[in-house]
Amino acid sequence: MRDVYVIGAGITKFGELWERSFRDIGIEAGIKAINDAGISGADIDALYIGNMSAGAFINQEHVASLIADYVGLAQTSHIPAIRVEAAGASGAVAFREAFLSIASGMHDVVVVGGAEKMTDIGDEMANAITAMAIDQEWETVFGATYASLHAMMARAHMERYGTSREQLAMVSVINHRHGALNPNAQFQREISVETVLKSGYVAEPLRVFDMCPLSDGAAALVLASEVVAKKHGNAVKIMGIGQSSDTISLHDRKDITTMDASVHAAKRAYEMAGIKPEDVDVAEVYDSSTISEIIAIEDLGFFEKGKGGKAAEDEKIALGGDIPVNTSGGLKARGHPIGATGVAQIVEIVQQLRGEAGKRQVNGAEIGLAHAIGGTGGTAVVSILGVKE
Amino acid sequence: MRDVYVIGAGITKFGELWERSFRDIGIEAGIKAINDAGISGADIDALYIGNMSAGAFINQEHVASLIADYVGLAQTSHIPAIRVEAAGASGAVAFREAFLSIASGMHDVVVVGGAEKMTDIGDEMANAITAMAIDQEWETVFGATYASLHAMMARAHMERYGTSREQLAMVSVINHRHGALNPNAQFQREISVETVLKSGYVAEPLRVFDMCPLSDGAAALVLASEVVAKKHGNAVKIMGIGQSSDTISLHDRKDITTMDASVHAAKRAYEMAGIKPEDVDVAEVYDSSTISEIIAIEDLGFFEKGKGGKAAEDEKIALGGDIPVNTSGGLKARGHPIGATGVAQIVEIVQQLRGEAGKRQVNGAEIGLAHAIGGTGGTAVVSILGVKE
Repeated sequence: MRDVYVIGAGITKFGELWERSFRDIGIEAGIKAINDAGISGADIDALYIGNMSAGAFINQEHVASLIADYVGLAQTSHIPAIRVEAAGASGAVAFREAFLSIASGMHDVVVVGGAEKMTDIGDEMANAITAMAIDQEWETVFGATYASLHAMMARAHMERYGTSREQLAMVSVINHRHGALNPNAQFQREISVETVLKSGYVAEPLRVFDMCPLSDGAAALVLASEVVAKKHGNAVKIMGIGQSSDTISLHDRKDITTMDASVHAAKRAYEMAGIKPEDVDVAEVYDSSTISEIIAIEDLGFFEKGKGGKAAEDEKIALGGDIPVNTSGGLKARGHPIGATGVAQIVEIVQQLRGEAGKRQVNGAEIGLAHAIGGTGGTAVVSILGVKE
Repeated sequence: MRDVYVIGAGITKFGELWERSFRDIGIEAGIKAINDAGISGADIDALYIGNMSAGAFINQEHVASLIADYVGLAQTSHIPAIRVEAAGASGAVAFREAFLSIASGMHDVVVVGGAEKMTDIGDEMANAITAMAIDQEWETVFGATYASLHAMMARAHMERYGTSREQLAMVSVINHRHGALNPNAQFQREISVETVLKSGYVAEPLRVFDMCPLSDGAAALVLASEVVAKKHGNAVKIMGIGQSSDTISLHDRKDITTMDASVHAAKRAYEMAGIKPEDVDVAEVYDSSTISEIIAIEDLGFFEKGKGGKAAEDEKIALGGDIPVNTSGGLKARGHPIGATGVAQIVEIVQQLRGEAGKRQVNGAEIGLAHAIGGTGGTAVVSILGVKE
């Protein structure tokens, strides 16, 4: 396989962008990434789009064709345009497919975009759409929601490992603190443990401030082969990518305090990159809920199983801690436009590794990791990037 | 890039399968392909699923995770499972992604499935969902439907090239004749030109028998690297694949009697395969309407632009003709479960090249071509397969 690099990154403001359309934000992120890479449209060989549910959110499928058209590449260079979907991991899986298209030798320069427009319809309908990431016939039909399944994971983790309600809250507190330093974040204000504990229940024991919001937003990356990347000063190498699956239903798993898909994806990514968890300087992990982040930092090997809650309490995952996690604000504070998230995570890692993360910069970061989940862990993708030669 | 082969193929009966679920037919096709390849589940490195709109049809996204789970591979080998969408080209694009994953060296054995369950909801809703393949904001909102856009293409082709109403009907007559020889086809009976001309209008000049049906169905393929394929007697080589995009909206094109995406995809595929159109022995092309097939056989270089109607009239595209097209019955008679079609076309080509196509066998076929379209030509994929060394 050929080596592949990230040479450009772009992202829109995340939030409730009622005045902007799906194609509008998709184009903005793409143009920013292309400008950042210093390439022209004619250099681009292919386009990959991560998107979960434009069909349900905005009555539009075939969105890769749409974006290729609206960025002006469909009628000029007629590039292949591919939409990839794996619920919350859609953007990360699109990134992996783009990686493979260059690693194979088929393409040299590929744009990966992720986008979702979720807030133009009511919250109730939007929550019904996000529930299409879990098993319709054996979970949703019986009343399970995305949040209630996370609540079960939280209860199991609290029971088995003594994880406390306050420790869960600390994940949200830290991510809001980070989000306050990110000008593109949906929520840019700090909160306290009390803010979380006084917010209403979504699914006991999880409250409003334990859960990520509904969001609009887009992010994009430009990937390139080594020959092209060497012409760019700012190239970040893709050291390893691992993707795994697990049962789509939570009730079919042996243990709901871990996500096997994350464990296996991480193992594959670490092996490919030739590194260990302790080599990672900065990480973006999937905090669709506070318990989701705690399980992730354990599954990724940053902390022993059962010690994730304590790590949050001790602020080991905050800026300045042992392993800063979700410096962007994460899904909780940056926001979670589903298809965009996997790409947005890598945009953050690229900015960190280039030393361009401003007030939230992790000093001297050389290796970064991004971790995305589809559903409650039916899909996981772990990507490792680095600037160390 | 490494060479890639097809070593297994499977397909379900296409039709209105009201007693069967999406996961049910997906599993059937997958198991058939795996058995045909003579491999076990443990040999499989990854799963790609082509599907257009399970979210809208059956309230289920994340379908690659679902199928990986239900075929029993999610919890055992935790394989990567990737869903790909490009409207009617979804299955073909999934095939290309699977090809790249092996060509890159990442995987050795990959299953590609295509599936769609369209008939569990009313026809009106199903047609609204298929319209999500075209531009929601600039076509659908103003009253355009998938069929009405094809009607415009038909009128333009008739005006410019003298293509007759009877020539369009002959495409349907030939595909029904082929479908009658295919035990998996949705429609297995012959029709006459009169049948077409007496059927009701869908969008003038196109009538019911000019349009493909709504269908349920699934198809699957097993792809393998050369090392694995050499152990199999029945391997078919993937000689070339080309994918292209064009404007998603019909009104943005210079000429609506051709699909530039098809022309460019074909050019890329022919170059990669090192062959010319006249070297193709059998082809499956995208006949979502009769005009769509006529435009396709011209764009693919089988006939001069404008001569496609005459080729149908002279039965040059029928079994026994110069270049048998849609021996499976095509989208018109085999049926068109959208996400399955791109994979089903390649299943037919594989069966033809192996000499296993029964009553519809093209004698001595050594090179076959499959052509899929997304929307009205926003995406096109051309795949060329061969058994000649």
